[in-house]
Amino acid sequence: MSRKVVCCFCKSLQAALQRPSVRQLAGRSFSKPPDIGRQTSFSGRSHTCGELTKTDIGKQVTICGWVQHQRLQQFVVLRDWHGLTQVIIPDEKKPAVPDLALESVIQVTGLVQERPDGQQNTKMPTGEIEVVLKDIQVLNECKPNLPFNIQDFHKVKEALRMEYRYLDLRNKDLQRNLRLRSEMVMKMREFLCNQNGFVDVETPTLFRQTPGGAKEFVVPSRFAGKFYTLPQSPQQFKQLLMVGGIDRYVQIARCYRDEGSKPERQPEFTQVDIEMSFVNQDNVLDLVEHMLVHCWPESKGRLSIPFPRMTYHEAMAKYGVDKPDTRFDMQICDVTDIIRESNLETFRPLLDQPSASIQAVNITGGALHFSNKDISSLQSVVQENSAEKIFKVIKVKEDGSLQSPLVKHLRADDVSRLKATLKPLSGDLILLSGGNQFEPHSVLGRLRLECASLLESKGVEVRKKADFNFLWVVDFPLFLPKEGGGVESAHHPFTAAHPDDAHLLTTHPNQVRSQHYDLVVNGSEIGGGSIRIHNADEQRFVLEKVLQEDCSELSHLLDALESGCPPHGGIALGLDRLMAVVCGTPSIRDVIAFPKSHDGKDPMSKAPAVVSQEELDVYHIQIKDT
Amino acid sequence: MSRKVVCCFCKSLQAALQRPSVRQLAGRSFSKPPDIGRQTSFSGRSHTCGELTKTDIGKQVTICGWVQHQRLQQFVVLRDWHGLTQVIIPDEKKPAVPDLALESVIQVTGLVQERPDGQQNTKMPTGEIEVVLKDIQVLNECKPNLPFNIQDFHKVKEALRMEYRYLDLRNKDLQRNLRLRSEMVMKMREFLCNQNGFVDVETPTLFRQTPGGAKEFVVPSRFAGKFYTLPQSPQQFKQLLMVGGIDRYVQIARCYRDEGSKPERQPEFTQVDIEMSFVNQDNVLDLVEHMLVHCWPESKGRLSIPFPRMTYHEAMAKYGVDKPDTRFDMQICDVTDIIRESNLETFRPLLDQPSASIQAVNITGGALHFSNKDISSLQSVVQENSAEKIFKVIKVKEDGSLQSPLVKHLRADDVSRLKATLKPLSGDLILLSGGNQFEPHSVLGRLRLECASLLESKGVEVRKKADFNFLWVVDFPLFLPKEGGGVESAHHPFTAAHPDDAHLLTTHPNQVRSQHYDLVVNGSEIGGGSIRIHNADEQRFVLEKVLQEDCSELSHLLDALESGCPPHGGIALGLDRLMAVVCGTPSIRDVIAFPKSHDGKDPMSKAPAVVSQEELDVYHIQIKDT
Repeated sequence: MSRKVVCCFCKSLQAALQRPSVRQLAGRSFSKPPDIGRQTSFSGRSHTCGELTKTDIGKQVTICGWVQHQRLQQFVVLRDWHGLTQVIIPDEKKPAVPDLALESVIQVTGLVQERPDGQQNTKMPTGEIEVVLKDIQVLNECKPNLPFNIQDFHKVKEALRMEYRYLDLRNKDLQRNLRLRSEMVMKMREFLCNQNGFVDVETPTLFRQTPGGAKEFVVPSRFAGKFYTLPQSPQQFKQLLMVGGIDRYVQIARCYRDEGSKPERQPEFTQVDIEMSFVNQDNVLDLVEHMLVHCWPESKGRLSIPFPRMTYHEAMAKYGVDKPDTRFDMQICDVTDIIRESNLETFRPLLDQPSASIQAVNITGGALHFSNKDISSLQSVVQENSAEKIFKVIKVKEDGSLQSPLVKHLRADDVSRLKATLKPLSGDLILLSGGNQFEPHSVLGRLRLECASLLESKGVEVRKKADFNFLWVVDFPLFLPKEGGGVESAHHPFTAAHPDDAHLLTTHPNQVRSQHYDLVVNGSEIGGGSIRIHNADEQRFVLEKVLQEDCSELSHLLDALESGCPPHGGIALGLDRLMAVVCGTPSIRDVIAFPKSHDGKDPMSKAPAVVSQEELDVYHIQIKDT
Repeated sequence: MSRKVVCCFCKSLQAALQRPSVRQLAGRSFSKPPDIGRQTSFSGRSHTCGELTKTDIGKQVTICGWVQHQRLQQFVVLRDWHGLTQVIIPDEKKPAVPDLALESVIQVTGLVQERPDGQQNTKMPTGEIEVVLKDIQVLNECKPNLPFNIQDFHKVKEALRMEYRYLDLRNKDLQRNLRLRSEMVMKMREFLCNQNGFVDVETPTLFRQTPGGAKEFVVPSRFAGKFYTLPQSPQQFKQLLMVGGIDRYVQIARCYRDEGSKPERQPEFTQVDIEMSFVNQDNVLDLVEHMLVHCWPESKGRLSIPFPRMTYHEAMAKYGVDKPDTRFDMQICDVTDIIRESNLETFRPLLDQPSASIQAVNITGGALHFSNKDISSLQSVVQENSAEKIFKVIKVKEDGSLQSPLVKHLRADDVSRLKATLKPLSGDLILLSGGNQFEPHSVLGRLRLECASLLESKGVEVRKKADFNFLWVVDFPLFLPKEGGGVESAHHPFTAAHPDDAHLLTTHPNQVRSQHYDLVVNGSEIGGGSIRIHNADEQRFVLEKVLQEDCSELSHLLDALESGCPPHGGIALGLDRLMAVVCGTPSIRDVIAFPKSHDGKDPMSKAPAVVSQEELDVYHIQIKDT
């Protein structure tokens, strides 16, 4: 480096090095015995900024934090996560206190005194005291004009917040979410490991491709042409742990899924991964319920267990979706027979099909609150979601009569039957949809949620924010028809058949229900699991005969099943989604410290980034010519 | 599938499905209230195989496990991790008990009774009782002739153990290691999160390349030519968390390093990653000591804190290595002056060099126990480790006199000075090495460890296995000379200078000590950390001027440092290595559930594996033509 640059630069650097900011914590011994307090043990603080009260008056304290306000060198308000403390600068100390940019980091030593009469702030935990400054150390000055004001983060666009995530993290909501996440996970571990004998085992994330393993990130290896993959879940490993005699396994597991751009997905996410030997479905559901009760934050109310259970079929029939939001009613009703037996012609062609069904849902207050524009918007939801597009709307008038072009074609008896089924009140809105099998249910399931949001946007209370309606959905189908013929696993090929249907596996696999279960809360699926196949013959049959997969890539698992594998089952809870529900945030990005944007990029570090061909050479790969 | 195959196969499958093994746990309700016991709550067991004693006599119990022995349909010994239980088969039940292959999984319900006189086994916790079989369910039959006998795993080659890891995991040592790992990590979390206000935060593993980030695995993204990398540590993220006001961070963090084939390295490994704001070096060291005391297994004795501290310079001078094994003495002594002032000619040419040094170490009992072949083997260690190769051996005879071709050239006074420095006793062996700077220390450091192993192989106790000699090594140099000129960071570019040397940073960076610290136990480095640079000017100066790195890839970090970054520091403990030391295993593979082999492969699943070009197309890469 040139001499000139050195001299020039060094001066300012040496000045910086001589400021207390750099030297001061290094040179002093702050060690305190560890029993002083949880947040301030082993540190240069005697107290946090949130804990001083009248009982501390007269004490000399040392607090550290960020400058939240500074006024005319008269006082400074110091902030850390725990709260705010007002620091008064006596006249003789004013020369020692520089004019500081907001968000500068300082350490203050001073005496706690009562605030003068009339200056108390009863809304602040520290509002009855102030600290009279004796000594101030500027630990690190903040530059002026940060990209946004920490207090205003709610007004800031998410892109900017993500680019400056280290500032965004200072906001109260993110801090609270991350700390709550840490606390809940700790309580889950206590319940599982300390109280119920679970073993926390780490499984590899450099794994190999699994059959049908689409959406798996690949990691090139030094072996030419060979790749690790980042697993979507530790499924195989946790089953192998059961074979290995680790009775009860838990891992807060990092998982990976490459789905390109999806708004509420992250390329890496976390699941609470659980597996147990010698259990049946009830055991796993019980365990999870007790775990959630144990870790549930007090501030969110007490959970009532057992959670209700609903079959997949009932969920689809009543809510049109396998993850129903049961915080509100407005269930779907089957009106196929009523319409079939009416003299309505509109539905005739549909009803000629054997699997035809006509369903209806009564939206409480829909006619009263929805404009014609709102109703059109519902119609466009149908357009997006249904091939058949048979959709009708009936308003319930003030006198209880039904209003719709459809109604004049109905006989009085048909209307009575509809009313008896749907029980509409004046001001309600009946939605009617026709299609095959669960198609009308799906449409009405979507509309049910749309209508709830629409009503809420108009100030009608439909769902209580503070409610947590947990629900188990059980008895899923084991297989689903595959595009192009054949079947595929509804969940994954290791799921065991329902014991009552096991005899149908070889003859009618389509009719077999599984021992899969989903945990749903407020319309969000936050977990899923199953009892697994532990019999090698059954597993081989499902893979080879039913799914027609190549078993060679799973030979180690099949081999393990016949080497003394106990019956076992488990579950994986999506920690990010669970936390989003608990914290009441609309996005999982608000419960993750450093999330990726919707397209999988990190706006802060600019990941992913270019890598030189020289570095790729080690892995025997090159960018593909396009 | 052909009709014939179906029929043939289905029969055996249907038979399998009708066996209790598949249906039986699914169909019965095993749920028990969660207070029954930690290992058996929420499961089909009333007790484990290790807990029944005389106090349980008369109880009906249900136990599950693996068949460890079966004799003539008279009794079965059932095993789970918790122990062994003997099950007696009464005559009337014999027809119900099939002849089972060892390692088959069964469930037994029966009555606990006292063993008849003379049949008690006082060495077994369950040795005073037996369970009289009432009901048996074969949960899963094991195939005969497993690749190895679970009890014989010590005799089995590691390659075979790794291929059948799910069997290997059943061995007692691996089970104990994994369970101890889980328990210790839990206690660390309790200490940090529950007692000291730490927040457990998950940081991304899909990151971007860092400057000089060699050995980082790349992960191709859907953006052509752009790659994520798997980070070697969450270093940047944890510093950004401090900027974001998360005062105290901990993560049991998965880290990645691609070093190709190295025997004691794994491509993925785990560190206990800690960072704290408003701390100095003493605070971090104190915290770690208290944490280790808290999580230390009772069976391993109590740790005494504070751990001794040694400067890097002292470690190199006395032990020839920066991670000294302090379980035994045999320190290196400087004899440069003695030799220089003697009339020895051998060392004259070396001593003419300004940085020459001659060092010696006295190996207690070396002359007594080592054969000439042993001494030659020491010489070959020197050949491998030293360019200068000036190495001499002196035996201490029974009468205390020194025996070596060298000695006859020494005056009596020189011999006395050597003896006064090295204090040899009869039967000892003095090793002498010359070279430049720390070169002779390095050679003698290696030989010191070689000699300890050699003595131990001959039955001499040098190091107690049960001892854990923890040690902090501090005051490392901040920079090291780089091949081809210039300097590089001794650890990483975010390490702060020692406060007493900070003024030398701009003028004599080579002379600056750092605030880096290493935690060493029994000669193994199990952790390292530092106080970090929190001043943006200092960080930019180190990166641009001292290290001559391109700062653009770290602009977000530099920006963060000037946005109100508190002083902070932390540490990362290598969990795998720590556990290997605690468990007393020679290899970290024995404390990892599914380790990779020395060349980074998984012999069980055959990872890494071939991936189709179609799948690589998504990531715009192809295998490079060679």
